[in-house]
Amino acid sequence: MRSTVSALALAVSLVAGAVQAQSIPETAAALRDKALAGSPAYDILESLTTEVGPRPTGSPAQKRAMEWGVAKLKALGFSNVHVEPFSKQAWTRGPESAEITGPYPQKLAILGLGGTIPTPPDGIEAPIALFHTYADMLAAPTGSLSGKIAVVTEPMVRTENGAGYGAVILMRVIGPQEAARRGAVAYLIRSLSTADDRFPHTGNMEPASIPAAALSPVDAALIDRMAARGQPVTIRLKLDSHITQNAQAWNVVGEIKGREHPEQVVVIGGHLDSWDPGTGAIDDGAGVAITTATGKLIADLPRAPRRTVRVVMFGSEETDGSGAAYAAAHKGEVANIVLGGESDLGSDRIYKLRLAPGGVADPALKGLADLLAPLKIIVDKAPADDAGADIEGLQALGAPIMTYYQDASRYFDTHHSANDVIERVDRKSLDQNVAAWAALIYTVAESDVDFRKGGK
Amino acid sequence: MRSTVSALALAVSLVAGAVQAQSIPETAAALRDKALAGSPAYDILESLTTEVGPRPTGSPAQKRAMEWGVAKLKALGFSNVHVEPFSKQAWTRGPESAEITGPYPQKLAILGLGGTIPTPPDGIEAPIALFHTYADMLAAPTGSLSGKIAVVTEPMVRTENGAGYGAVILMRVIGPQEAARRGAVAYLIRSLSTADDRFPHTGNMEPASIPAAALSPVDAALIDRMAARGQPVTIRLKLDSHITQNAQAWNVVGEIKGREHPEQVVVIGGHLDSWDPGTGAIDDGAGVAITTATGKLIADLPRAPRRTVRVVMFGSEETDGSGAAYAAAHKGEVANIVLGGESDLGSDRIYKLRLAPGGVADPALKGLADLLAPLKIIVDKAPADDAGADIEGLQALGAPIMTYYQDASRYFDTHHSANDVIERVDRKSLDQNVAAWAALIYTVAESDVDFRKGGK
Repeated sequence: MRSTVSALALAVSLVAGAVQAQSIPETAAALRDKALAGSPAYDILESLTTEVGPRPTGSPAQKRAMEWGVAKLKALGFSNVHVEPFSKQAWTRGPESAEITGPYPQKLAILGLGGTIPTPPDGIEAPIALFHTYADMLAAPTGSLSGKIAVVTEPMVRTENGAGYGAVILMRVIGPQEAARRGAVAYLIRSLSTADDRFPHTGNMEPASIPAAALSPVDAALIDRMAARGQPVTIRLKLDSHITQNAQAWNVVGEIKGREHPEQVVVIGGHLDSWDPGTGAIDDGAGVAITTATGKLIADLPRAPRRTVRVVMFGSEETDGSGAAYAAAHKGEVANIVLGGESDLGSDRIYKLRLAPGGVADPALKGLADLLAPLKIIVDKAPADDAGADIEGLQALGAPIMTYYQDASRYFDTHHSANDVIERVDRKSLDQNVAAWAALIYTVAESDVDFRKGGK
Repeated sequence: MRSTVSALALAVSLVAGAVQAQSIPETAAALRDKALAGSPAYDILESLTTEVGPRPTGSPAQKRAMEWGVAKLKALGFSNVHVEPFSKQAWTRGPESAEITGPYPQKLAILGLGGTIPTPPDGIEAPIALFHTYADMLAAPTGSLSGKIAVVTEPMVRTENGAGYGAVILMRVIGPQEAARRGAVAYLIRSLSTADDRFPHTGNMEPASIPAAALSPVDAALIDRMAARGQPVTIRLKLDSHITQNAQAWNVVGEIKGREHPEQVVVIGGHLDSWDPGTGAIDDGAGVAITTATGKLIADLPRAPRRTVRVVMFGSEETDGSGAAYAAAHKGEVANIVLGGESDLGSDRIYKLRLAPGGVADPALKGLADLLAPLKIIVDKAPADDAGADIEGLQALGAPIMTYYQDASRYFDTHHSANDVIERVDRKSLDQNVAAWAALIYTVAESDVDFRKGGK
């Protein structure tokens, strides 16, 4: 009972503006509990996925997403709302199809990989060279795939921390080049997916001289079964797409200006762009919603924290553009960036925090473990080493980073597929994320913690 | 231990051909246990879905399915393997697309309903009239939907016995006519699906003067959310398709000829045709596999049962054609049809049996409840009243029928969608089905049970 009474008292004191009476951990706990009771994140995500939908770089929807972001940040009470434009090459999908033409004709569910070249208009029809693992294909000699469509059907392993994705991602990113080097005329992979359904999953690839696409897991298994019968399997693949050089993109920014050290900035965000098949709910509408809701909760405090909290909706993560653009535009400011972090692994619960060196030991963060324990989050003493693609640029310039580890068990069931929609988002888990971000970011912004101090 | 030893002894006696020493319940139990230990059903289903795939009436694949059926029945040792041709109007899907054009443009995942007319080549673009239930649309006055695309977003309820499907099926079958009567220019429904994913589900409809399609459940919910914002929602719909009059279709038949009363026939089967988006694994490759495996297990007995067991792969259930064709071709034989039954509700476990009147009370079926109890199937004393669409014609002519009730909880997650694939099939449940069918059908075929006796 005591804790309930105490939480109530804190809530009342927040409303009354009597925040001066509260310690940093008390206010942080109140923010945490307010988020848990129902944060604005779900409504932000619902707004983005309903009013914009899929928003790949170079699409008209990407511009609408930028306008949505500006309007949303202003409506939520952020200050210094603005966009930071940059240009980026954009790849746009056209009509696509694939089918087995023999021995047993069947249509295949595929998605071209982001950046693939198109096939000739009539497509490419060729016998396949089938590999059950990517390593098997790499073991094939140069030229040995001449005239063949290389097909790799290695499945992805489900893991809590997403390590299964890392284990196979080269199959998608570099695989097309490797298949081309061995003479293949096209390249197909089993989607990097942990589901066994009919959705193909797209994703980026390095430029290659042959077209490349991802099969749904079910279609990859079908090819495996058909090939096991011993007759040659032939596939016809048609892909269309076009490249736009210097497409416009935007990082969208809003702030809660620090009341004592406005020049000291905590940078958090998610990415606003998405792949085209779904509505980009878990990748990364969720991250945008979590970090925007975090800023909104902090903005609603009776007074701003001592340092500035900056929320960035990064504009082109999937093409690896917005992090570099952000770092280039802010390299003069890096010494003043207190901490940077990105939410980009969906909406399922956070279970672990890692901070920049020195952070855990800093007296200002003494209460952090207790603050996060009710959220079932542990504070790992190992230093954060991965802050997300959009923060990597700042990290390389010396900015301290943090990582919240989310349960990624379900994430790759729908990531980069048409099924990345708001129905995949569990509202309670989303709010647990906001609670964790709000409690931490407020603590960092209100205190004088120095993540550079005592670090390696 | 005793039952294990007993089952082993039975298995040994079967192998030794010492079946004469066994009672009917003993042999039925041995068939049941053999099926549970691993029936041929999964391999049959794997063969059909891999070597043929989707096989709608009027497609080249439907002919390949017929040839597959003939070859499979012969290879499995059935006698009197033949096809019974009939003609049927066929509807073939062409390219389809739909998108919200305002206020927030987004692509929609749809499938035209089977039998829909095409739209003009440039499609139909119109504001929507949105109804959250089908009853709401029926309440709209004649002419009130003039110039609108009627959209009904009523969700389907998940139930064990499939009653949720029956509750909304008119929305799909008759809905297009009802929308046209009220002036609509096109008709869209939330798919009859219990999932909340991005797969639209097709299905048949009565001929209507306007085009009609099914939205994925996710896309229907998107329209609901967008419309709730108060601005008019407009949709562009493009459907293409063509009709083939007098397409050829085939019922494929194989028998285990009765050793004493070959003219007395137990008719069982599933349907070989499927919708086009998936591979027709649960609808109804599973039913074909279950009943074919049942026949195979009976054919492998040292001697045939006294009556004939006939397995029919019905050729055009989804267009409501094969049952009528079968009844028309066999009306002179109805007095000799001992019992008819179809497996057409997927591959999940059977939980209940209903028989024709008189069957349960017949002394020949005295041991039936004990035979099915280990499979967790109850024998319901109420008379069977629904034998499946392909048996309805025989039923109308007076043939006794049976119904095995399957758990349909998952069935409508993927039924009629691209995700109806073999990955949805649980092998253990499939074998439980075969065990139930084999035990029952052997008992009926070996005994002198008369389902007409004592019936109403």
